[in-house]
Amino acid sequence: MLENIHSPGDIRNLSARELEALRNEIRGTIIKTVSENGGHLSSNLGLVEATLAIHRVFDAPRDKIIFDVSHQSYTHKLITGRYDKFNTLRQYGGISGFTSPAESEYDTVYAGHSGSSISVALGIAAANKRRGSDAYTVAVVGDGSFTNGMIYEAIDHAADNLDLNVVIILNDNEMSISQNVGGISKYLSRVRTSRGYLTLKHTLDDLLVHIPLVGKPLAAMLKWTKDSLKRMFIRDTLFENLGMPYVGPVDGHDIPRLEAVLSEAKSRGGVWLIHIVTKKGLGYKDAENNPDKYHSTCSFDPNEGLCPQTCESFTSVFGDIMCRLAKDDASVYAVTSAMRDGTGLCNFANMYPDRFADVGIAEEHSVAYCGGLAISGMNPVCAIYSTFSQRVYDQVMHDAALQRAHITLALDHCGIVPGDGVTHQGIFDAALFASIPGVTMYSPETYAELADAMADALAGEGVVVVRYPKGAEHHYDRRGFVRERSLTHRIPQTPDCVIVTYSIITEEAVKAVDMLADRYRVGIVKLTTLLPLDADKLAELLSGCRLVYVLEEGVLNGGVGERLAAFASERGLPRVHVRAIDGEFIPHGDRKSLLELLHLDASSVANEIERELSVR
Amino acid sequence: MLENIHSPGDIRNLSARELEALRNEIRGTIIKTVSENGGHLSSNLGLVEATLAIHRVFDAPRDKIIFDVSHQSYTHKLITGRYDKFNTLRQYGGISGFTSPAESEYDTVYAGHSGSSISVALGIAAANKRRGSDAYTVAVVGDGSFTNGMIYEAIDHAADNLDLNVVIILNDNEMSISQNVGGISKYLSRVRTSRGYLTLKHTLDDLLVHIPLVGKPLAAMLKWTKDSLKRMFIRDTLFENLGMPYVGPVDGHDIPRLEAVLSEAKSRGGVWLIHIVTKKGLGYKDAENNPDKYHSTCSFDPNEGLCPQTCESFTSVFGDIMCRLAKDDASVYAVTSAMRDGTGLCNFANMYPDRFADVGIAEEHSVAYCGGLAISGMNPVCAIYSTFSQRVYDQVMHDAALQRAHITLALDHCGIVPGDGVTHQGIFDAALFASIPGVTMYSPETYAELADAMADALAGEGVVVVRYPKGAEHHYDRRGFVRERSLTHRIPQTPDCVIVTYSIITEEAVKAVDMLADRYRVGIVKLTTLLPLDADKLAELLSGCRLVYVLEEGVLNGGVGERLAAFASERGLPRVHVRAIDGEFIPHGDRKSLLELLHLDASSVANEIERELSVR
Repeated sequence: MLENIHSPGDIRNLSARELEALRNEIRGTIIKTVSENGGHLSSNLGLVEATLAIHRVFDAPRDKIIFDVSHQSYTHKLITGRYDKFNTLRQYGGISGFTSPAESEYDTVYAGHSGSSISVALGIAAANKRRGSDAYTVAVVGDGSFTNGMIYEAIDHAADNLDLNVVIILNDNEMSISQNVGGISKYLSRVRTSRGYLTLKHTLDDLLVHIPLVGKPLAAMLKWTKDSLKRMFIRDTLFENLGMPYVGPVDGHDIPRLEAVLSEAKSRGGVWLIHIVTKKGLGYKDAENNPDKYHSTCSFDPNEGLCPQTCESFTSVFGDIMCRLAKDDASVYAVTSAMRDGTGLCNFANMYPDRFADVGIAEEHSVAYCGGLAISGMNPVCAIYSTFSQRVYDQVMHDAALQRAHITLALDHCGIVPGDGVTHQGIFDAALFASIPGVTMYSPETYAELADAMADALAGEGVVVVRYPKGAEHHYDRRGFVRERSLTHRIPQTPDCVIVTYSIITEEAVKAVDMLADRYRVGIVKLTTLLPLDADKLAELLSGCRLVYVLEEGVLNGGVGERLAAFASERGLPRVHVRAIDGEFIPHGDRKSLLELLHLDASSVANEIERELSVR
Repeated sequence: MLENIHSPGDIRNLSARELEALRNEIRGTIIKTVSENGGHLSSNLGLVEATLAIHRVFDAPRDKIIFDVSHQSYTHKLITGRYDKFNTLRQYGGISGFTSPAESEYDTVYAGHSGSSISVALGIAAANKRRGSDAYTVAVVGDGSFTNGMIYEAIDHAADNLDLNVVIILNDNEMSISQNVGGISKYLSRVRTSRGYLTLKHTLDDLLVHIPLVGKPLAAMLKWTKDSLKRMFIRDTLFENLGMPYVGPVDGHDIPRLEAVLSEAKSRGGVWLIHIVTKKGLGYKDAENNPDKYHSTCSFDPNEGLCPQTCESFTSVFGDIMCRLAKDDASVYAVTSAMRDGTGLCNFANMYPDRFADVGIAEEHSVAYCGGLAISGMNPVCAIYSTFSQRVYDQVMHDAALQRAHITLALDHCGIVPGDGVTHQGIFDAALFASIPGVTMYSPETYAELADAMADALAGEGVVVVRYPKGAEHHYDRRGFVRERSLTHRIPQTPDCVIVTYSIITEEAVKAVDMLADRYRVGIVKLTTLLPLDADKLAELLSGCRLVYVLEEGVLNGGVGERLAAFASERGLPRVHVRAIDGEFIPHGDRKSLLELLHLDASSVANEIERELSVR
C-alpha cells in the first residue's frame, strides 16, 4: 500500500481494514530498514497509529506537525512521499533519520534536541493568529522530554495564550531512552494507574492476522465518543494547575479513539495537551521486551535480534575507566542526562548506585547539580554528548567555573557524528567551552589517552573538559611519534610544513603526510591538551617550518586554529593556515563522505598543503 | 543593634521586641545604602523577616543557604558580619550586590542567573548524605524563577531523592521583575486566594512605631502551631503532583510563624517546598507601590523617591527604535524574558501588545519561540542581556540558525557591567555566538549605529546579533573618522600601529592614540560589524603598519582578536597583538577601576603599544 501513498491525503479515505493493513506494512518497512541501516526502532514502532491519526485529522502541511527530537518521525516520513527513498535512511545523500525541511514540506523543523517543540509550536501558532490563519500546530512530545525544563517554560507561556491553535501530544511510553526517572514520570504512572485507559489488547500476532480491531461500526464509535470523550475532557490536577487544558489518557494504538479525541480538541480550538499511552517497540517482540536496546541501533538481523554490544568504543572504555577510578576514589560521582547506556555508565550505575544520578533529559540541571556536589567535596563527572553540551554553557560558567568548583565534563560523540547528522554533530564544543575562564580541555585520540585524560581530569582543578569521539579508536602506523605530556609529535628535520591537529582526524593528517612524502617534509603535532596550549613546546616544534597547517574536526570560529594563529603571531612563528569547518551545518552520512564534503580528508589536506607551500 | 551582630548566632537569642527593632534597623540600612549606592531595593525589603527566620532556625555556615539570583541577600549580608562594610555595596573593592564566597563563608555560591539554586542545593545535599552529614541546604527562590525551566528539572530530580535535607523557600511576592506572567503565576495566585494566608496587617508606619506584632505570648504561638501547622502540611495539587512535599502559604513577614514552619520541616527531615508570601518593597512606601521601579535602582534621594528615568541610554534608544521599526513593518515582534523594563520595551509593549511577549524568566523558550515566529513569517527580536544570553546558545543554534529562521538577538549590557559584577559581565557573547554557522553580528558604538544595525538586522537573513553596552553612548572627538559600511576608521599616513577595536572601549583607544601622538602614528579601526569581518577592507587598512593591536572588551578565547590574527596570518598582514580579557572573571566596581584592573584603559593600552613597537 505504501507505494501508493504519496501524501497524507492518500490515507484519509482508507477503510478500517486498509488502515490495519497499512500499519502492519509500515511496521514491517521500519523494522526492515532499521535492521539494514541502523536507526531508531522502539520509538518509531510505538508511534505508528498516532502518526496516522494525526495525519488523518490534521491537514499538513497547512497544519504544522513538529516532532520533539524527531527520531520518532519514520511513519510520518513514509506517508509524506518518502517511501521510495526510505531505504536510504541515514545514508549520505539519503533520507535523514530526523525531520528535515530540506527533504519535505511536511517536515516543519530540523529537530534533534529535546524539549523545544512546544516553544516552536507556540511561535508558529502566534504568527498564524497574527495573520488571521486558523491553522493548527501539533507538537508530538515523548514523556522523556517532559523531564526537560524547556517544556515547562513553554507550558507556562502557553497558559497566557490559550487561544492559540496548538495541540500537544504527550506520548507516554513510560520511558525516555533509559527507564524514566523523576517526579513527572511517577505522576504519569499514577494517572495511568488511577484513571485507567483502554489498554492495548492486540499483539503483533493479532496485527499479522488482520483482526479488524479498528473496524468497529461507526455507530458504536460515535456512542463511545459521546460517553467517553466527555469524561476525558476533565480537569487534571498537574497540567490544569500549570494552566494547560488536558485530555487523556488515550490508548495511542487505537486509531478511531485517537481520531475522535484529536477531532474533538480541534473543534474546540485553542491549546490542548493530549496524553496518549503507547508501547515502545510494538510489533517487534525483542524491542517490546527491551525497548532500551532498540532505542538507537546499528544494523542487525531481524530474525536474530540485536547481538549484545561487545565491540569496544570510546564510550565503553570510558565506562570502564569510570568504574576503575571510582574504586580508588570514593568521591567520584557520575551524572548523566537520560544517557546511562549512551555514555557507557551502565556498569558504573550498577556498581556504585549511590554515586550515580540519571537526572532525566535535564542537561542544565545536571551541570548545576555537579557544581553543588563539587562544592560539597565530591568529584563529579558529568557525562554528556557534545551536541547536548550546547545546552549547558551557562551552567558550566555560572554554576561551576565561577564557583571554582571542580567538575569534569566527559563529552562523548565529539567531532563528526555520521548517521544522526545535522542536529547531532559534535563540532562546536572545542570552541564553545574555550571561552569560559579557567577551563582545562583534553582531547584524547586513543583509549590510553582517554584513560590518562580522565585520571588527570579527576586530579585536576576547576572545570575540566574531556572530549572524545564516537566509535572506536583509529589504527594507523604510529611509528616515529614522540609522546609528551600535552601532545604527540613527529617532526622531520627542517620540515616544510607542520600539521597541528587533534582527535581522530589525525589519521587523515598522517595519510596526507604520506601522500606528500616524495615532495615535502611534513611534520605532525597531535594535541591531546587543547587548553591551555603548551605554548613553549609548540613554539619549539613549529619554529622551523614554512607553514603551520591546522586541521580541525570542529568549527573555525573560536576553534584551536584561530587560537594558534594568534599565538603564532604573538611569538613570531611561521604563518598559520587553518582548515576547519566554516559556517556550515553538516548533514548525515558515512564519515568518509562527510570528510570529503568538508575537505577534511587526507587528499584534500595534501592538496591544500601543496598549494599553500607552492604559493609563497 | 546591627553593630553588635557579627554572625547569625547573635540573632538567635533576641526577644520579639528586639527582633522588631532589628528588622526596622535593617530596612533603614538597606534603604539608606541603596539610595546612596544604587542596588536592588524591592526584593531586599521584602525578604527581611524571612532571612531572619531562616538564620534563626538553620545553622549556617554548616547548613548552606543559597539565594537564587541572590540580589535579595542584603539582610543576609547585614547579619553575617558585613554591616561595617555595607556602605561599600557595589563599589570597587567593596561588598558585592550578590552573594560572594570570596566575601564570606556564609555565602555558598556566586549567583546571578535565575533558576539554578535548587539544582546546586540538591548537589550539596547529595554530597552531605554521602558523607553522613545531616546538614541542611536551604534554597531561597522567588516566584519569578519558577518560570524558569531549570527549577522544574531540579524538582523532577528531587522527587527521586526526597530523603535529602533540602528546604526550598518559594518566595511568592506576586511578581518577578516586571509583573509575573504565565501559568505558575496564575496558579500561585489561585492558591493564595483559595486557601488564604495571614495577610500582612502592618505597614511601614506600624513598624516605625514598634507595635509588637510579633511579640505574642509563647503559649498562643504554640496553640497556633498545633492547630494550623498540621493544616499547612497538607497535600497540594501542583507541587505534590510533581513529587515535591509542599507547605504553605505562610505569611513571609511573620517571624514566629515562619520559624514554626521551618522548624517543623527541619524536624521532619527530607525535601520540603515552603511557600511564603511577601510584599516587595515593604517599608518604603514608593517601592511598595511601584516595586518594578525599585527592582534595580541607581542612587536616589529617599525623601524624594526615584525620579522618572529620563536619561537616554542604549536601552531607551533601542526601545524607541523598536517602536519605529514596528510602525513600518507589521511583522516585527518583540520577545523578552521578564525584562520588559530592563530592555526598554515598555512603550513597545503598550503600543503593540499583540506583537509583544514577555515569557517569564525563560530565555531558552524565548529563543525557540522566536524561531517558531520566524518560520511562520514574523520578524522577531529577542531582547536579552548579554549575560543571560549564555543560556540560549543551543536554542540559537538548534531552533533558529539551523532552521534558517531569521531572528534578531538584541543583546543589551554587553561588555563590562560595572555595579552588578561577576555574574553579570557581558564579555562572552562576541565569542559565544561567533561559533554558530551563519550568524551576522553588529556591535554599534553610538545610538545612530544602533539604529542602523537594527534596521540592517531586521532586513537581514538568518540569526543576527546586535550587541550594545549598558548606559549611554560615549562622547569624544570623532573628527577625522571615516565611516564605512562595516567599520569606521582614522588611519594616518604610514601608521606604526593600527588599533582594531569595537564598542565603547573605542574611547580608550582614541585616548591612547593621543597619548602616543608625539612618538608614534597610530590608526584606529572601529568595527561595527564583527561577523562577517570585512576582509578586503581590513586587509587594505591594516597592510601598511608594523603592528595590529586588537583592543577587546570581551574574552580572548574565541574573540575577535583571535579571528583577526588568523585572518592576518592567512593574508600575510602585519603581526597581531591582542589585548582582551583572558581567563578571569571580573568583579563589580566602577568602569574606570575595572578597565585599569584589566589593563584595558588608555594608559595601559598606550604603554603596551609602545612596548610592542619598541621590542621588534
